[in-house]
Amino acid sequence: MLALYHFGPVANSLTPLLCLLEKGQPFENRFLNSRKWEHHSPEFQRLSPDGMVPLLLHDGRVVRESTVINEYLDEVFPEPPLRPADPWLKAEMRVLTKYVDEYFCPALTVLGAHNATAFASKVDPDEKARRLATMPNREVRRKWERVFEKGYSDEELAEARGKLARVAEKLETHLADGREWLLGSDYSLADIKWYSMVPGLPRMTPELCNPDVTPHTLAWLERMRERPAVQGLEDYRPQPT
Amino acid sequence: MLALYHFGPVANSLTPLLCLLEKGQPFENRFLNSRKWEHHSPEFQRLSPDGMVPLLLHDGRVVRESTVINEYLDEVFPEPPLRPADPWLKAEMRVLTKYVDEYFCPALTVLGAHNATAFASKVDPDEKARRLATMPNREVRRKWERVFEKGYSDEELAEARGKLARVAEKLETHLADGREWLLGSDYSLADIKWYSMVPGLPRMTPELCNPDVTPHTLAWLERMRERPAVQGLEDYRPQPT
Repeated sequence: MLALYHFGPVANSLTPLLCLLEKGQPFENRFLNSRKWEHHSPEFQRLSPDGMVPLLLHDGRVVRESTVINEYLDEVFPEPPLRPADPWLKAEMRVLTKYVDEYFCPALTVLGAHNATAFASKVDPDEKARRLATMPNREVRRKWERVFEKGYSDEELAEARGKLARVAEKLETHLADGREWLLGSDYSLADIKWYSMVPGLPRMTPELCNPDVTPHTLAWLERMRERPAVQGLEDYRPQPT
Repeated sequence: MLALYHFGPVANSLTPLLCLLEKGQPFENRFLNSRKWEHHSPEFQRLSPDGMVPLLLHDGRVVRESTVINEYLDEVFPEPPLRPADPWLKAEMRVLTKYVDEYFCPALTVLGAHNATAFASKVDPDEKARRLATMPNREVRRKWERVFEKGYSDEELAEARGKLARVAEKLETHLADGREWLLGSDYSLADIKWYSMVPGLPRMTPELCNPDVTPHTLAWLERMRERPAVQGLEDYRPQPT
């Protein structure tokens, strides 16, 4: 049995969703509604004590961390391969996915969490206290304390935007030789990982990512969006209730 | 040709050094003296534009990031294997190494950098300015700006110590079932990665890591220190000049 717990086709949840669709691998779709805090439910915490999403359940065993899940999926479902056979290119792939996890994602998360203050400000104070009390992961709890209070400081937002400016420049430079995919001619887990975050750049920081300054990045985004698996992600977007 | 650029058997530089010694793989030893800023020299920056260390040079190709280097080494020099064959255990190994990179190492780096203020305060102001101007990596430059000024704030140090307390508790809990190595009976890249950081705990935060509170961790450290490859690391420690 293969099941994916996810928040829909966005950010870290998109990473394993897209990998499964590229593989054409059937799986049980376990959507969690983050706005209903379903990832902090006792049921889910039995699988993921710190409430971290996404999570893969395969034959009774839990695999966590989207980057790790995707290497696992490529190993247990090897067709089509999404990691290059050449060890050096594989190392390049890992440097690229690691950069998203350690640098790009944390910076984008600051802006995303700050944008959530509008939603968070509507939460009843008692409900806020109750939610914070049940948050299992200390870093997540601290993030929400910030979001429930007043969001991030101007200095923190400027720091995050500065990092995103370097991310946008790095990606554009990387693609500027006209390569089709991040590793060259072979589509890989690196493209999947970056695609989980890059759409946030033109949306949240349009001054950093637009046709004038990042044409190669936008062309890569278009190539991604033409892939049937990427189009298939829409089926995993929750319908408004 | 195989060459490793490193700062000696400590922190991230220890990671690939120990892997190469476990493999019994001969390599060219390219020690860089960080106190002489050799990693910011134009020669080294030709290989590593942002001055990041360690760096592996293999048949003219550069591999960076200690965690990535070790998976590369295990792939190109497969004997003895340092990754489990089972895909699920391999995923567990990657979750463990990722945690060191994303959580443990950054927290320990704050204390380590803060401790460097004693050395940094002796640096001549002109020399400080010259050094900062040649630092190629913005995050590294910001860290040194802090260290050259007054180190980290009490709040930042408390935050880092809080994280290290959770790291120490997590490792002790992980080892409490009496397992020999981090993945159980098989020694792996996870042990190597954690060994690059864990010796810093009893040294810098003895209240968090001592025979009373972390007996399993100290026993694992002892088992590590009995390994011939770990003992061989001493040959790569620079002699005081």
